[in-house]
This record gives sequence, structure tokens and C-alpha cells, in this order.
Amino acid sequence: MSPPKDHRFRRRVTAWDVARAAGVNQSVVSRAFNAGSRVAPETRERLLAIAKELGYAPNALARGLLTGRTRLIGITTVQINSEISSRLLQNLGLGLLSVDLHPLLLPLSPQGVLADEIHRLFTFDVDALVLVSAAISPALVEACTAWGRPVILLNRVAPGHRLHSIRTDDYGGGRLAAQHLLERGAQSLAFVSGPADATNVQARRDGFFAAAEAAGQPPPRIVAGDFAYPSGVVAGRTLLGGPGRPDAVFCANDVMALGLMDVARELGIRIPGDLQVVGFDDITAASFAGYSLTTLRHDLDIVAAETVALLADLQRDGEASLVDRVVSARLIDRRSTHDL
Amino acid sequence: MSPPKDHRFRRRVTAWDVARAAGVNQSVVSRAFNAGSRVAPETRERLLAIAKELGYAPNALARGLLTGRTRLIGITTVQINSEISSRLLQNLGLGLLSVDLHPLLLPLSPQGVLADEIHRLFTFDVDALVLVSAAISPALVEACTAWGRPVILLNRVAPGHRLHSIRTDDYGGGRLAAQHLLERGAQSLAFVSGPADATNVQARRDGFFAAAEAAGQPPPRIVAGDFAYPSGVVAGRTLLGGPGRPDAVFCANDVMALGLMDVARELGIRIPGDLQVVGFDDITAASFAGYSLTTLRHDLDIVAAETVALLADLQRDGEASLVDRVVSARLIDRRSTHDL
Repeated sequence: MSPPKDHRFRRRVTAWDVARAAGVNQSVVSRAFNAGSRVAPETRERLLAIAKELGYAPNALARGLLTGRTRLIGITTVQINSEISSRLLQNLGLGLLSVDLHPLLLPLSPQGVLADEIHRLFTFDVDALVLVSAAISPALVEACTAWGRPVILLNRVAPGHRLHSIRTDDYGGGRLAAQHLLERGAQSLAFVSGPADATNVQARRDGFFAAAEAAGQPPPRIVAGDFAYPSGVVAGRTLLGGPGRPDAVFCANDVMALGLMDVARELGIRIPGDLQVVGFDDITAASFAGYSLTTLRHDLDIVAAETVALLADLQRDGEASLVDRVVSARLIDRRSTHDL
Repeated sequence: MSPPKDHRFRRRVTAWDVARAAGVNQSVVSRAFNAGSRVAPETRERLLAIAKELGYAPNALARGLLTGRTRLIGITTVQINSEISSRLLQNLGLGLLSVDLHPLLLPLSPQGVLADEIHRLFTFDVDALVLVSAAISPALVEACTAWGRPVILLNRVAPGHRLHSIRTDDYGGGRLAAQHLLERGAQSLAFVSGPADATNVQARRDGFFAAAEAAGQPPPRIVAGDFAYPSGVVAGRTLLGGPGRPDAVFCANDVMALGLMDVARELGIRIPGDLQVVGFDDITAASFAGYSLTTLRHDLDIVAAETVALLADLQRDGEASLVDRVVSARLIDRRSTHDL
């Protein structure tokens, strides 16, 4: 099959082509296109005419090399297939393009450990790095701090708040979950946890426990999870299959809550009659009629907008005060805590 | 709050800095770092020493400007929050980085129409464009063809196969769905459709109908959907709520199948006893115990690997024969078609 003409790669016209056609050095062409550079007016005029004729336009990347900025922003997601990460990526991508910054996607390998791979990410010529839902370790924070360019954590926070962080109010969300369950008459609370290196899980748990204590409740029972559906099923069997069953469970994310609800259904435990369940994230499946899960919703529009604003400031000013921005979570009240 | 030192932007060392320190023209520095360029050996040696001292390394973007290639690949997703698109993005991103190509994320606005926005995407300085699950229209195909750089459609195909296309075998998947249902004793088939501009939906339907006809069945009943959960609920009410209820439904994607299954549960229709259901995609929720949906799985590893290989070929050769690659779908047999 011969290549159709349409698919042939059309070579880009470069400053070099313009320079050759004009019989000048390439650096003269660069200066001609850079406002404020010293070039004789007649030379600039002649070069602009030749450039127009050849179809040459100096591109953003070329400008980047002159200014020392590429305007590329590296975005690293560990789990792009988590619904929240991918929605954030969408909002962030759109926002960056709107301020003439370019989102370079730097995914990790599925089993990749960010702290091990971060040095590889630093070799890309990006002006800043955004880490979405990263596993936080002291080694990671140290490496990012030493890099010397801005690093922004989304939905995570560095110990001692040593890196920019923009995130949902996980602590406040955890408190709302406990208050909501107690208002509905819950008497025996439990919490299904997430990965140990997820700083948002710790905050959700702390807020949940603080509100329980403030209401005079004993500390909720804790069962470990890892954010994935099967761990929610295991937590469900542990909490619901034996004696001392709680009447209200707060899961650190929605996916685990759905697993726990499927166990309850299998055991004939009525939701919310016998058991109330609250999740965190508001993924699409939480609203499915088969679940109708009460949960805490992120305001990803605001998280993305704040990130874009910070990156634009950094481009303009070269530096910024350490940003530590917390965006409220909203309780979405559905049937898993509400008998209709 | 004063800016901590760690967050100050460290200005990148450029060829210009090296040139100034060496007292030569910037173009000499470029040549020194470009194998095969004419530079006196002693000059090259001196420049390399100065570059090393200043911490200058010619970056990929700089090389791109010399070669007329940026090695940036634009990736456009319409619905990044669809699980299949985001998984594909992850695989694709990793694959591109492994061959030193850089994935530039170019998302569309949520209500964006690709055919309207495509000209804006062409202004980014990318070597090629990958469109993930794009809505295909004649205007889009025409614009992409006229652009003059390679465009690759993932999971879609252009009429007359005028653009590179790498996709799941939707037709074969549709056939497998019908064969599987008929083997399980289905006697009355129905199909829940998707968006009209999704070429994969048409292929799924055609395969499903062809296999039904080959087995001597009358044409399955069709109900319209739009890929979203609520449209699956509406399709469920239409198909299951009245007379002439089918005993087997193939939905053009999983999310709609889950909506239809929730309606069946509400109506007390037993799955798979009274009704068998097959979806397409194998999203995470399809495997949840509450659904256990039989479905067709994409091989996204192969789709991504083929895309990366094609892009690498295009970088090397500048052109390629029109690629039209179809990757088999695999039937994942679960309880929605299988009484345990």
C-alpha cells in the first residue's frame, strides 16, 4: 500500500530556512522576531517579508528557548484511571491551555513508586511539576525541594507543608460525615481506611474521629482498606459478618463503600435501615440507582483553577509564597443514609 | 509570608549563556552540540567545557527546533473521564515517553465539538495528533487531512479510512455478544445504541445484527442511548417495562448496561434467569459483585503499543502507509449471562 499524499510529513519551516533565504545568520532572524532586540529596521522588515512568504512563524517553544522558559508544565498522575485524577487532569489541561501553558503528561508506570521515579521526571524540560494524588514520602518531598523548580501537590500535602499544596478539605469532609451519620441516629461508627501514604486518608479519619469525640462517642472502629473495590468487600465481611456490627460506616473513598454495600446486600442487611454508609469522592457509580451512596464531593473546578492561577503567577514572577490552599468538600445526601 | 528559597524559580542555563561566556555567536554553540555540524574541534571542546561548568545541556526542545520536529505528540480526549479514554491515555503516555516522544495533553472543553475546535489544536507545535474516541464528522476528517501532519484516530475510524486508525474490533465484539447470548438460549434479542457519531457503536450493532441473522434470528429491537447511565435506565424502562420484553440485551457500553440492570432489579426481573445482559468496555464497575456484567474487553495495551510504534515510525521516516489496525475484543464471561 503506497502512502497517500495526505499523510506525508510536511517539514516545518524554521528560522534557519528564513536565514538561508535572506543570506543572514540564524541569530539575526531570532532577534528580528523578538521585540526589543537590536536589529536594523530595514533588516527586520525584509526578514518578516521573507518569513511570511515561506510560512515561518516563531513558535512558543522557540520563544521558550530564548527566555529560559518552555511554558511546559509536567503533570504526573499515579492512577490516571481513578475517576477523580482523570477529571482533575481534564480541568487542569483546559485551564493551562487557556493561559498559554502546555500540559505535558508524565505518567508513572503502573507499579511505579513516585519517590523512585521522580528524578527521571526532573529531566524533562518543564517549568513546574504538578503531582496528582501522589504517595507522599520524606524522600519524595526532599527530592522535590532540592529540584529548584516549583512542585505542586494536588489532593495531598507534604509534611510540614514544604511544597505547594492545593486540596480538598479532607478533615472537614470527615467531620461532615460523622455529623451527618450521628444526626441520622447512628450509635456505633466505623471507618474503612486507605493507603498509609495517602495524606488525605489521614485527614479524613482525623476529622471523622474529632467529630465523633465532640459528640461524646467512643472512637470508631477502624478496618484497613487500600482504595480498591476488593478491599471494600473484605472490610464489609469483617465489619458486617460478625458480632458487634456497626450501624454506620464511613469509607475513605466511594469505590470501597460500593464493595461494602454489595456485601451488605448479599448478607440481607438493609441500607439505610440497618446500616448507613458514607463514601468520599462522588464518582459516577455512587449515583447509580443500585447504590445511591451519600458521599463528599470535591470541587475540582476550584482545585484546577487555583493550580492554574498559581502556575501563571510563577511564570510571571518566577517565585511565589508557599501556597497551601484547602477547598471545601460538599456532602451529597443520597439514599444510603436516608430512608425514602 | 516571604517566599521560601526552595520555591524560587531557578533560571535555566541556555545556549546564549554559553555563547556569552565563550565570546562566540549562539549558533556556534548550537553547532557544537549537534553531531555532524561543522565546528573546529578545539572550539567544540572549549564550548563543551564551558557548558559543563555552567550546567548547560541542550534539551530535546532545542534539538527539535534544529530538526524541525518538536517530538511533542498532541493527545486530544473528548471525555477524559471515561474510564477507557483515561486508561488509554495512561498507556499511551508511558509508551511515548519510552521512545523519547512527549505527550502534550490537549483536552477539549466539556461541551466542545471537536470539528469546531480542531483548527485551534493545529496551532500547537506538535508533530502529530492522536484523537481518542473522537466524534467523527466529514468536516473533521477534511480538516485533519488538510492539516498535512499525521492524525491518528483511536477507537474510531474515518469514512473511507482516510486517517490512521487503531481500534478495538467492535464488529467482532458485537458478533461475539450475539453468539454468546444465543448459545445461552436467548430467543429475543435487543440492542441499546450509543451516540450517532460514534463509529464504534455502528460497528458493534452491525456485528450483533449479522450474527443474529446468521443464526436465523429476526433483527433485534433497537433502543437509542447516549453512552451515559441515565440513558441506560431509560432504555431499561422502555425494553423491560412493557409487553414484548426481550430475554437478552446487548448494550453498546457497560455504563448503560448497569443502568438497565438497575431497572431490572427494581422491576424484580431476575438476571440472568429472566434476562441476560452483555455490555462493552469492561470498566471497573462491571466486575462489582452487585452487577457482575458479561462484557467485551478492549486490549488497550496493544492499542497503545501500536500507536506508539506508528508515531515512532513517522518520526523516523516522515511518512507511513495509512494504518488501519483492528485489535480483537475479548468476551469476559460473568454472572449476567451465566447462572451459577
